[in-house]
Amino acid sequence: MTKKIEPRVLKGFRDYLPAEAILRSRMISKIASSFENFGFAPIDTPALEYAETLVGRGSAETDKQLYRFADNGKRDVALRFDLTIPLARYAALHADKLGIPFRRYHIAPVWRAEKPQRGRFREFIQCDIDIIGCRSETADAEVMATISNALEALELPHQLRINSREISNAWFEHLGLSEKTPEILRALDKIDKAGKEAVIKELQEKASVNLGQIDQLFALSLLTAADDAGVISGLRNLASECSDLNPAIDKLEKTLDLLPKLGMQNGSFKIDLSIARGLDYYTGIVFETDLISEPAIGSIASGGRYDNLASMFTKKELPGSGASIGLDRILAALLERESTSTANSLSEVLVLNMGSSTLAYRADITTKLRNVGINTELFPDEAKLSNQFKYADKKQIPFALVAGEDEQTKNVFSIKDLRTGEQHENLDIEKAISLIAKNNI
Amino acid sequence: MTKKIEPRVLKGFRDYLPAEAILRSRMISKIASSFENFGFAPIDTPALEYAETLVGRGSAETDKQLYRFADNGKRDVALRFDLTIPLARYAALHADKLGIPFRRYHIAPVWRAEKPQRGRFREFIQCDIDIIGCRSETADAEVMATISNALEALELPHQLRINSREISNAWFEHLGLSEKTPEILRALDKIDKAGKEAVIKELQEKASVNLGQIDQLFALSLLTAADDAGVISGLRNLASECSDLNPAIDKLEKTLDLLPKLGMQNGSFKIDLSIARGLDYYTGIVFETDLISEPAIGSIASGGRYDNLASMFTKKELPGSGASIGLDRILAALLERESTSTANSLSEVLVLNMGSSTLAYRADITTKLRNVGINTELFPDEAKLSNQFKYADKKQIPFALVAGEDEQTKNVFSIKDLRTGEQHENLDIEKAISLIAKNNI
Repeated sequence: MTKKIEPRVLKGFRDYLPAEAILRSRMISKIASSFENFGFAPIDTPALEYAETLVGRGSAETDKQLYRFADNGKRDVALRFDLTIPLARYAALHADKLGIPFRRYHIAPVWRAEKPQRGRFREFIQCDIDIIGCRSETADAEVMATISNALEALELPHQLRINSREISNAWFEHLGLSEKTPEILRALDKIDKAGKEAVIKELQEKASVNLGQIDQLFALSLLTAADDAGVISGLRNLASECSDLNPAIDKLEKTLDLLPKLGMQNGSFKIDLSIARGLDYYTGIVFETDLISEPAIGSIASGGRYDNLASMFTKKELPGSGASIGLDRILAALLERESTSTANSLSEVLVLNMGSSTLAYRADITTKLRNVGINTELFPDEAKLSNQFKYADKKQIPFALVAGEDEQTKNVFSIKDLRTGEQHENLDIEKAISLIAKNNI
Repeated sequence: MTKKIEPRVLKGFRDYLPAEAILRSRMISKIASSFENFGFAPIDTPALEYAETLVGRGSAETDKQLYRFADNGKRDVALRFDLTIPLARYAALHADKLGIPFRRYHIAPVWRAEKPQRGRFREFIQCDIDIIGCRSETADAEVMATISNALEALELPHQLRINSREISNAWFEHLGLSEKTPEILRALDKIDKAGKEAVIKELQEKASVNLGQIDQLFALSLLTAADDAGVISGLRNLASECSDLNPAIDKLEKTLDLLPKLGMQNGSFKIDLSIARGLDYYTGIVFETDLISEPAIGSIASGGRYDNLASMFTKKELPGSGASIGLDRILAALLERESTSTANSLSEVLVLNMGSSTLAYRADITTKLRNVGINTELFPDEAKLSNQFKYADKKQIPFALVAGEDEQTKNVFSIKDLRTGEQHENLDIEKAISLIAKNNI
């Protein structure tokens, strides 16, 4: 008799019970369909990479959060912390085979040893799209429209908040603050949460920006309040003293004009000049996405344009545009909603166990239902009928099928709708199929 | 300028190019549909587990092959090497929530640092089903029928080779060889590859079985050659001197009788008394599965009945039946077949880039095609038409859509079928949709 081991899950990790796994797999297949509808093809890369591929690619933060170790062959390896760095490695390695532009999607888990919090796990799924090898605004617009379409497929009202690094860069340069761009963006990003006073303090302390410059900085971020036409005309006003802004504004306008043509709904996007994005490699459009009903969970999809995806791996320039949906955050939010369906079974019919004398008969009925695509469970062991009904209730299986000896003799069976209690007797397969089709919505 | 890092993949791991990823994801969704059709619900567990959960659960072999390390919190952790041990841990932890019987499927990667060989990787996907909490042959038959149905959905002619540990156990006990069961099974399993002489030698040397006993052992395994009725009647003959065989034969017969009723085709299963299965926890039916066209790649799906899944984690007895499909082995075999479709894109239409003056017009057409479910790519950057056609060819996209200024003026467009060269002009959206539906088979 061996000692029992406590069954437990690592901190920050989670098991998916059927209800959660069903919901998640439905979400994944809707997202994948959206991605494919917009011309993206799937790829996959290994969970484990050489550590040198991953270290120093994200930030000091992601380096610290790496699951890194020596494998049995003493190789320095690590679990991927995102899908972008593996894509860069992949694009550099397979460039000749992929063709340009390369539109790929990748839906897969990543691992980060960060502090677990609500809606945040150490293992989580990212849903990434990228169009590599192109420089036009069309690619940026396509990426944003794809993300919006996927969120629509999930029936999640949302808003993309869009900024342009080219605009911020031109403006900061005009103010002589080019070199402090990261610190400034980081400070300005906090205005919603921390308030204006705190941001001013941080700008002075961390970025050594003086009060005159701060007023000028706010001139940009305050434009956020107006509608998009207002923001653009405000930007044009600023451009009268900083003409470098104009080409960046032109690009932004062109991109925005394209979004409705690519299917984005009114209100599903707006300019927000305070959007920063933590990652340094972005060079053009950047965006984050709020859920209208759950703004508190923060951005659930983000992305942007980069000039050179794989510079650490290849001399080949790979400009492009990409984005990522944070599936587990959305899932956590949905699971807190009462209206979210949490069916814990996909079975439509439970064929009750009426004893061995009817087993072959019941198996045959089961197979006929399955063959027309009705998900059907055959209750395997003999058990009290009351317990079998309890099982069907617990599993939220809508129909129970009764085929005992009487029914077998007459070559019929009956079906009980467990949601209404209604009993349908003397059915044959065809009647059963139409009954289930009609009532199972 | 930072030093370039060589883009490379760890030994035994692999990238999936779009053609492979498309094929694999289609296979996964067919397998998942089959599993759901038979009443299984999805679950998921973390890739990483406490090492104590995994160590000593499989074999000395799997222990050696573990990716095991200390995480940042100094926890002794490891990547799962199969989906069965995590299921045992999961079932013990969530028993109260799951209900009995618990039918789950789990399609996910596992990791083993084994010697890479053809069709074998260090990261590979398993597709597992289990019915936990039942003792009847019905569950065993359901598991085998589900596997067979999934392989049929993949259009892979196959044969399950089925044995019963209860039969082998009764026979070995009769011969006084109970304690040598594992060694005997291991030796007998080699008869196809190594031949009778080698097996006799191994039985003598490794299991110290004498020649008289060996004749008796072969009496059992030789029955394999006949058809199922012949094997059963042969077993009944043996039962005249070993009556303990009878209940095991009864069970096997019952199980086999049920298989056609659960939809299994003629020829898709047979008794094979030489089937051993490496794992000790099996106690009843065990089976392996050959692909009819590729027997050389070995078993691509296997499973069996166990009395107690989670004895290391809980006092609760969890008997059941389960099986696993080795997806990557099948995929490797399929990729070697010339007839396997290796489309590297899911896009049906490429909307050619005819310059910025028609961008909005082309984006609008693109959206209308996407909205009816036609996967459509908008070529993002301006490029020579010949290069755009080359791109479509390389991606095997069947239709190219031309909407230049002329077409825009007339509010029409044309579509070229790139497989036939046929050109269709003056189309509107409705004509285009029916054209694509008709020709895209």
